[in-house]
Amino acid sequence: MDYQTILEEIQYEVQPLFKKGKLPNYIPALEKANGNDFAMSLITLDGEEFHVGYTQQKFSIQSISKVFTFTLALLAYGKELYNRVGHEPSGNPFNSLVQLEYERGIPRNPFINAGAIVTTDCLVSKYQENSFTQIFEFIKNVSNTSNLEFDEEIFNSELAHGFRNMALINMMKSFNNIENQIDLVIKTYFKQCSIMMNTRQLANSVLYLANHGVNPLNNETIVTPPQAKRINSLMLTCGHYDASGDFAFKVGLPGKSGVGGGIVAVVPKKMALCVYSPKLNKQGNSLVGTKALELFTTKTGLSIF
Amino acid sequence: MDYQTILEEIQYEVQPLFKKGKLPNYIPALEKANGNDFAMSLITLDGEEFHVGYTQQKFSIQSISKVFTFTLALLAYGKELYNRVGHEPSGNPFNSLVQLEYERGIPRNPFINAGAIVTTDCLVSKYQENSFTQIFEFIKNVSNTSNLEFDEEIFNSELAHGFRNMALINMMKSFNNIENQIDLVIKTYFKQCSIMMNTRQLANSVLYLANHGVNPLNNETIVTPPQAKRINSLMLTCGHYDASGDFAFKVGLPGKSGVGGGIVAVVPKKMALCVYSPKLNKQGNSLVGTKALELFTTKTGLSIF
Amino acid sequence: MDYQTILEEIQYEVQPLFKKGKLPNYIPALEKANGNDFAMSLITLDGEEFHVGYTQQKFSIQSISKVFTFTLALLAYGKELYNRVGHEPSGNPFNSLVQLEYERGIPRNPFINAGAIVTTDCLVSKYQENSFTQIFEFIKNVSNTSNLEFDEEIFNSELAHGFRNMALINMMKSFNNIENQIDLVIKTYFKQCSIMMNTRQLANSVLYLANHGVNPLNNETIVTPPQAKRINSLMLTCGHYDASGDFAFKVGLPGKSGVGGGIVAVVPKKMALCVYSPKLNKQGNSLVGTKALELFTTKTGLSIF
Amino acid sequence: MDYQTILEEIQYEVQPLFKKGKLPNYIPALEKANGNDFAMSLITLDGEEFHVGYTQQKFSIQSISKVFTFTLALLAYGKELYNRVGHEPSGNPFNSLVQLEYERGIPRNPFINAGAIVTTDCLVSKYQENSFTQIFEFIKNVSNTSNLEFDEEIFNSELAHGFRNMALINMMKSFNNIENQIDLVIKTYFKQCSIMMNTRQLANSVLYLANHGVNPLNNETIVTPPQAKRINSLMLTCGHYDASGDFAFKVGLPGKSGVGGGIVAVVPKKMALCVYSPKLNKQGNSLVGTKALELFTTKTGLSIF
Repeated sequence: MDYQTILEEIQYEVQPLFKKGKLPNYIPALEKANGNDFAMSLITLDGEEFHVGYTQQKFSIQSISKVFTFTLALLAYGKELYNRVGHEPSGNPFNSLVQLEYERGIPRNPFINAGAIVTTDCLVSKYQENSFTQIFEFIKNVSNTSNLEFDEEIFNSELAHGFRNMALINMMKSFNNIENQIDLVIKTYFKQCSIMMNTRQLANSVLYLANHGVNPLNNETIVTPPQAKRINSLMLTCGHYDASGDFAFKVGLPGKSGVGGGIVAVVPKKMALCVYSPKLNKQGNSLVGTKALELFTTKTGLSIF
Repeated sequence: MDYQTILEEIQYEVQPLFKKGKLPNYIPALEKANGNDFAMSLITLDGEEFHVGYTQQKFSIQSISKVFTFTLALLAYGKELYNRVGHEPSGNPFNSLVQLEYERGIPRNPFINAGAIVTTDCLVSKYQENSFTQIFEFIKNVSNTSNLEFDEEIFNSELAHGFRNMALINMMKSFNNIENQIDLVIKTYFKQCSIMMNTRQLANSVLYLANHGVNPLNNETIVTPPQAKRINSLMLTCGHYDASGDFAFKVGLPGKSGVGGGIVAVVPKKMALCVYSPKLNKQGNSLVGTKALELFTTKTGLSIF
Repeated sequence: MDYQTILEEIQYEVQPLFKKGKLPNYIPALEKANGNDFAMSLITLDGEEFHVGYTQQKFSIQSISKVFTFTLALLAYGKELYNRVGHEPSGNPFNSLVQLEYERGIPRNPFINAGAIVTTDCLVSKYQENSFTQIFEFIKNVSNTSNLEFDEEIFNSELAHGFRNMALINMMKSFNNIENQIDLVIKTYFKQCSIMMNTRQLANSVLYLANHGVNPLNNETIVTPPQAKRINSLMLTCGHYDASGDFAFKVGLPGKSGVGGGIVAVVPKKMALCVYSPKLNKQGNSLVGTKALELFTTKTGLSIF
Repeated sequence: MDYQTILEEIQYEVQPLFKKGKLPNYIPALEKANGNDFAMSLITLDGEEFHVGYTQQKFSIQSISKVFTFTLALLAYGKELYNRVGHEPSGNPFNSLVQLEYERGIPRNPFINAGAIVTTDCLVSKYQENSFTQIFEFIKNVSNTSNLEFDEEIFNSELAHGFRNMALINMMKSFNNIENQIDLVIKTYFKQCSIMMNTRQLANSVLYLANHGVNPLNNETIVTPPQAKRINSLMLTCGHYDASGDFAFKVGLPGKSGVGGGIVAVVPKKMALCVYSPKLNKQGNSLVGTKALELFTTKTGLSIF
């Protein structure tokens, strides 16, 4: 069966689930999304593309940005990065301060909020005021998109309601694991979360992770093969907060979700996928998106396991 | 390069590491192992075998038994099993009571001690006094071995020093997540940990997980393909206690370690591996064994990522 | 106003509260108590006695026994005792394993279960099989009672349902903070909890704490004045589990409660009190008993604050 | 023996301890204090005063201010205050975020930092920009001092290094337990900590707590007798962070310490005390000050127990 048919089957089969899940209410700007939106994109290493749903719809990439920030920090610092952020699953909800205090300000991994704030701080140490521009240009490059925007309203909304993240960054600063001004780091962090992309752009943007670190469309080397392997393993073990085990269990692909409703996933050596549906399950991941990817690996047998 | 050569290279390259690591001291019987022992076995789905080191050396399988107990409990209870044990990484050392109390007696996954005690209790509910025999016969079957033993001295040693596990089972009983007599469950649990096997037998015993649930050597179906996929994903996200993320990161294969010094690993659709070296790293996994598997995926590119 | 009148007023005023609270259901033998029972005894240092209610009613002293075990352990070990048990409030429910694990097997204070198990173990190290007899004789002596009993049914019931306490003692044993056989220690612990006394006997039994360590009725020295002061301070800061602050706040007297429904309290230099009512508040202390003591200090101004 | 002689004896006996303890290093301005400074003041309800040491030396009152903020918040909100802050010992270090997260943003008591920030927020809800002035005027009044100052350098230093407190207030805000702008609340909080007083002024300032809520020197009613009793009980159970039990144990008086090196204590119905010595023990309380108060109750028998 061809991929287009499979995507269409998935789109059909997830219909009954749209009434489930909830739009996130802690960021008012996200609550306005249309709960029934759905889009899914698949791009192979050969550049073949398959899409269903309204793939023009842009949404804020939120925590998917953590993949790019981590990639950049890994490029800048190599293994030294692991002195400041771990690579173990957290076993706790994504915004937990408990574990962070217990472990003296060293976040468990770069895909929980605390960890992504630390990798952002690493970038700010290097790029200062230009940090967001660096991240932004990197994302444009890997997504093969010349024209991206970030949403001011979402950015301001996150900034105004980001008390948890402010608690995290202040605590890490008290443990000397934040090197720069809190204000600059947190704004850089929230800005990258507010970048607006569609499923086609996002699927493109993680193709390098499906191809040993090389963008297959233009042969540009982004990271080394071992680095690509490690980013993928981190996505598998830590990419979905407190539901990472469940995602590995049911979908069986390295992936990363965002509260904006997007999920990217990678089939190593084969393809990249992105699905969008804004209502979330109780762990904060797209409910329909997770199911769509589960159906995909069930139908295709493309799970890594 | 052929597998035999690769295994020999690995054997050579890990030599400098034998002085590192520690024999476990909380179970006196384990402390007597020879710290320099090393063996590694690779068996492909075609039945081709490659070995290095003293592969006749038997060692107690310890937590590797958790894979078999979980397989049996999954066969007996299906998805209902997940009411009593989760499938998320624990993010805490392998014997932590903290998380168990916080989560009211439901262990995070079947590969931490608490979780394996619960799956054992599930089997005791079904097989009563015959539970150990069932587990033992199952392991004989999947390892294609007619003649296995468990070590009375190790069993008694674990029983006499198993205060942590007694604390775990009593706490779960207080939360009504243990159905049977503590004494019977804990003895069944410790007995399966004390089963003695060598790397060849253990590599054989997980071939069904590399082959969609079917033992490739005799075509016997052990579990369904989705069940095999889920056991593999659990080994990847939870198979090495508090170092599961690190193992996924460096090795990139589903695997399960035991404090007896063994580690099994699976390359889906290709092969099963087992490595033995009794000195442990600080997370309680074979130090040389972990490194050997890391070298294996680096040399072969067979990581799932 | 004389004490008899005050006690009678209290008895009248607490009537509406008998419908509140709950009999403990985790020890079946305790659940059979009559929820409307009430008795209160006050004995001054001069030996004057005042009583209301059915003061002949015996009930299991449960955690009130912790005061006597701690007294005996302090006599036997002096300050060395504090190497094995602390003297800080726990800030957690009475049976929490979390804090105990975090603090590596050293209980916060002798009035939480873990702490009382450790003080019992201290006594077993000294008195072995005779430990319970020693405790029993001590309580007979301080309560001026020649004829006390412990309740076999309650003892057996606690033993059969004491999984939490078994978890605690096993965990402490794993941290090497239990020196003796678990079976002997836990039986000694449960036996002392099952001693049956009435309010008059219990009020007598803590008179030494109101009188600088000397039993005022026979001038026998039980502990030194600094020891009496310290036992009292511990009862104030830790005597009522997670409601210790609330008891200090509302009653303002050193006191110790038991899930059997009794509470003893001490007015330093003046008197000892005991109240009994078996229904408990949600922190596991006698609901009517706590209120009765609050009314007592409000009416008399005898709070230590 | 008269009080003056006792204070002089204490001053002599604590001399060997000045080499112990440490000046706090997390607030640079506090690190400059002279480690050998010592002063102690005792004021009876009759207004008799006794002093030793350099009682003119002013120091920042730090957490002693929590007593006054709590008094004011209690006056403003009565029992409703307890919806936002508890009255149980915390059983954890004074700045722990763990317990706060576990208990969903409700601090355990008003004498840990989180609790004092909440009581400050309560006052800001009522007095807005004038909150600090209200607190300042209240302290001037209860200490019978017309002329007090706060130290700008200490205030700025705390503001610049207060990442832990910023983490606490942001976390509580995320749980909706902070009603006002973080900036205004935290500045009000740090300002009150920076108020400079000497031991004579501070002893005066808590006389109302020794006298059922009435300032004995001018007969002004500050709080009701039950309120005074409750503030005292809170100081006893929660006044010294993680060493509250130890202070109750050894000193046996309601008291409150500050990292500036001061400790106030109250002998109900008799007197108020203040001692100053800037080096701290590992729980963050004045090491020599704690010892001086312990010597005081040992010599006088004035412990409440």
